[in-house]
Amino acid sequence: MAIQTYQGKKFCEDQNHRVDDNLVVEQALQISINNKTFSITMRTPGDDADLVRGLLYSEDIYKDKEELIISFSENKKKGVTEANTTIDKDLLSDGYSNSRNLLSVSSCGICGKTELEEIDNKNKLQNGVKLKATDLFKMFKDMSAGQPTFHQSGGSHAAAAFSKNTELLVIREDIGRHNAVDKVIGHLVNEKQLNKAKCLIVSGRISYEIVTKAFAANIPILAAVSAPSSLAVDFAKELGITLLGFCRGNKATCYAHPQRLI
Amino acid sequence: MAIQTYQGKKFCEDQNHRVDDNLVVEQALQISINNKTFSITMRTPGDDADLVRGLLYSEDIYKDKEELIISFSENKKKGVTEANTTIDKDLLSDGYSNSRNLLSVSSCGICGKTELEEIDNKNKLQNGVKLKATDLFKMFKDMSAGQPTFHQSGGSHAAAAFSKNTELLVIREDIGRHNAVDKVIGHLVNEKQLNKAKCLIVSGRISYEIVTKAFAANIPILAAVSAPSSLAVDFAKELGITLLGFCRGNKATCYAHPQRLI
Repeated sequence: MAIQTYQGKKFCEDQNHRVDDNLVVEQALQISINNKTFSITMRTPGDDADLVRGLLYSEDIYKDKEELIISFSENKKKGVTEANTTIDKDLLSDGYSNSRNLLSVSSCGICGKTELEEIDNKNKLQNGVKLKATDLFKMFKDMSAGQPTFHQSGGSHAAAAFSKNTELLVIREDIGRHNAVDKVIGHLVNEKQLNKAKCLIVSGRISYEIVTKAFAANIPILAAVSAPSSLAVDFAKELGITLLGFCRGNKATCYAHPQRLI
Repeated sequence: MAIQTYQGKKFCEDQNHRVDDNLVVEQALQISINNKTFSITMRTPGDDADLVRGLLYSEDIYKDKEELIISFSENKKKGVTEANTTIDKDLLSDGYSNSRNLLSVSSCGICGKTELEEIDNKNKLQNGVKLKATDLFKMFKDMSAGQPTFHQSGGSHAAAAFSKNTELLVIREDIGRHNAVDKVIGHLVNEKQLNKAKCLIVSGRISYEIVTKAFAANIPILAAVSAPSSLAVDFAKELGITLLGFCRGNKATCYAHPQRLI
């Protein structure tokens, strides 16, 4: 259930009247690894297994090729959905012990550099992928057409992944920007299609964490409807990701690694 | 430094040209209590003491009336600002030991109820405050006039507090919605003006955490430019907060406790 109807009182000038509005649902998901609480995430219910899988994958907690086994239960007393994953200790990746890999990356030699050319030769992801700007504009149209929760509630974010031929692979919505991205990555991991994803597009803004998730998923092009942060651009430059912001209508601005755009 | 200039390549139809764009700065602030790391927050630098004070206040970590002493240092190797607060153990509030108070509140008897009237008699905050819808529209105009970082970068959120006479008390901007609210609350705590704040308005969307922060600060009216989540409305109903969303131009929709609007 991604939306729920609430009564409201709508004020317009000095008038008001009753309305029934659809709001995006926000509920808690408690994720445990080997019965130890790892995280409590506020999310929109739906595709919860993909969310857990994508979160653990993009945070470098678990990358084994075996399918991740997740069991769900509803804790009605607490009003929380509980997801427990059982992972052999030998298969837990570095991200499980590190709280964050932010600190090492944000002290890199690239951050703060503002000349695009300075870092064009630095590129940790594949360069072979090329994209026309007009293809990008089409992808955002495709994503917009697949956002029923947003069109009904105005309150959800979306993320979508595309192949190198601009084929839509998956769209997901969630109240959390990060969750929408995790659901996309988790779906692709589960379908063994992550290697097909060459472009990740998101509604809203881009902060550094979205960039690190794209990097973890090895997706070289990342584009957003709204503004990127300074650190998102710094990370994209450092990690070799083509980053675009303000993708609206037939416009878009590239802030890192424009060499993949033709 | 709230904004930083980056070079970009702007694509428009099949043309492109170089641009210099201002992006909102996102940097890490590590908050420690008694030399133990409490949280790492991605924030826009500026008003950092207010951010720490407001965060600890609104999360119920520290509510003593003595001024909070915070010392700052720059860890250039890590690229992180470190804020350390020294708090006597006897003065640490419940929030310090509890990871979150979400679970107890989200299992309340109100959540999920959709009839506004069902909960009109339930109200944990003062009812004396009344607001005209037209005053609300004016507050959003006032906030918009005080968002230089947003107008330059398109990437920052804002929060502002007003008195019962719709007098502007403080506006703050940050890349994080929660941070902007924490900076507002921290400023008011420091100026001993928190009891004057009767209305908190925010750009963007409202999730449940913003509602809990308004409640912690004892602010009875909360309004946002964009959509609230289902849980934000549930919490507002339960906690006695008048919650409005979609406040745009001369329109606004109230989802909880409309009795404070005249």
